[in-house]
Amino acid sequence: MKFIRFQKGNAVSHGVLEGSTIKQITGDIFSGWEYTGKVYEADEVKHLAPLKPNQIIGIGANFVSKQEDLPDSLPDIPVFFFKPVSSVIGPDEHIVIPGNIDSVKFESELAVVIGKEARNVPEEEILDYVFGYTIGNDVTAPQFFHEAGHWTIGKSFDTFTPLGPVIETELNPFSVNVEARLNGEEKQNSPTSLMIVPIREMISYLTKVMTLKPGDVILTGSPIGAEMVGTGDVIECEIKEIGTLKNTFSAVGHGVGVS
Amino acid sequence: MKFIRFQKGNAVSHGVLEGSTIKQITGDIFSGWEYTGKVYEADEVKHLAPLKPNQIIGIGANFVSKQEDLPDSLPDIPVFFFKPVSSVIGPDEHIVIPGNIDSVKFESELAVVIGKEARNVPEEEILDYVFGYTIGNDVTAPQFFHEAGHWTIGKSFDTFTPLGPVIETELNPFSVNVEARLNGEEKQNSPTSLMIVPIREMISYLTKVMTLKPGDVILTGSPIGAEMVGTGDVIECEIKEIGTLKNTFSAVGHGVGVS
Repeated sequence: MKFIRFQKGNAVSHGVLEGSTIKQITGDIFSGWEYTGKVYEADEVKHLAPLKPNQIIGIGANFVSKQEDLPDSLPDIPVFFFKPVSSVIGPDEHIVIPGNIDSVKFESELAVVIGKEARNVPEEEILDYVFGYTIGNDVTAPQFFHEAGHWTIGKSFDTFTPLGPVIETELNPFSVNVEARLNGEEKQNSPTSLMIVPIREMISYLTKVMTLKPGDVILTGSPIGAEMVGTGDVIECEIKEIGTLKNTFSAVGHGVGVS
Repeated sequence: MKFIRFQKGNAVSHGVLEGSTIKQITGDIFSGWEYTGKVYEADEVKHLAPLKPNQIIGIGANFVSKQEDLPDSLPDIPVFFFKPVSSVIGPDEHIVIPGNIDSVKFESELAVVIGKEARNVPEEEILDYVFGYTIGNDVTAPQFFHEAGHWTIGKSFDTFTPLGPVIETELNPFSVNVEARLNGEEKQNSPTSLMIVPIREMISYLTKVMTLKPGDVILTGSPIGAEMVGTGDVIECEIKEIGTLKNTFSAVGHGVGVS
């Protein structure tokens, strides 16, 4: 089932996408919802990020380029980071490059949406806590990485987390490819089997640290091939079974700094 | 005005603390509220964290020990980090030490509560966007810092962000001392003038990166003197004009790791 969030006039709704039609729903996608009976054509509404995340957690440098490069053992402490919920935008919105710089990096990723409160959950049960999957673009300005290793600012700018186009609840996350096309040219295309920390281990680990909640989004890492891009570039992040998340990069007025 | 959040039976309410009485309020503390007319004695209710934060942002290593050590210029990129909202607890709750380790660090801090959406706000106007101030204990397990500099896991465990006891809306943040007592003995006591990145500059910087929202909490850094502590230790974080945030450290059952 493909859950979508959309705007018609001033009203924001959730719906279920079936082919080219959207069946509007009411209620909470995690705890209980029903159809309203209203149906829209997908192209007559504005598509939004499919949810307003509760929190966004990312994992760093989580892909190798080929199976043989996978390490024999998993890292003791994976590199996790948070992105602010204020950084979320939807399909077709502009990714805004901060004033002081002229390029940023795209990173196409499979995004896991948590559906049930999860605390200290073993790997073999963890997928029961997943509501579904969407696509995330973990846009990054490495110019704002701190020299001591902190990525926070470089990943936190408004518009730096496009999500969408839908949450697919029936996906097998182990049989999909994460792709990206820059101005129509393929730049990323890797199966999720090339993840260093696989999805079950990643989410189970997190639940041993913190209680995950419905609406938490976990960005599972980006394949080899991400590049720096600039104003006017168009990025399409794709997982064929979910859809395509397309955004254009644009420049902005104001700079960043401690004055 | 001192805003408080409390529990009586199963019901959670907000209120205004006046001396030893709490006047219950209804509505949203940021956008509009009114008194219900109900009054409680402060000692007949359970005090909770004074808000459920929208997001929590911290700044690292932000205090010097004496005025002469303040740098001549501010850092280009301050060390910021996020803590998950799932890590918040209230006064008198237990801080739980993760299973694999036997000690964690306390860090007493002045916590700024944002009251209005703030984007690209200059330093001289930024305090207009602050709702008030509370005390935060930025509990940290440096054993879980990643060797490449990422602090995320070490700061994200459940119970690692005690907040309280109240949000004081009439504080002058430039004329207070941030204190901590461990088992009754003073360990931290510094004026906020010893901050490397001062409050206005810190929050203004953040608004040039991300849109801050009502309920965002900014932990402004901890004075020199924080220590590792273990099960049974009692920490009191204090800012005299706000109150005292007291918590006890205790051990837990389950371990953390990628298996």
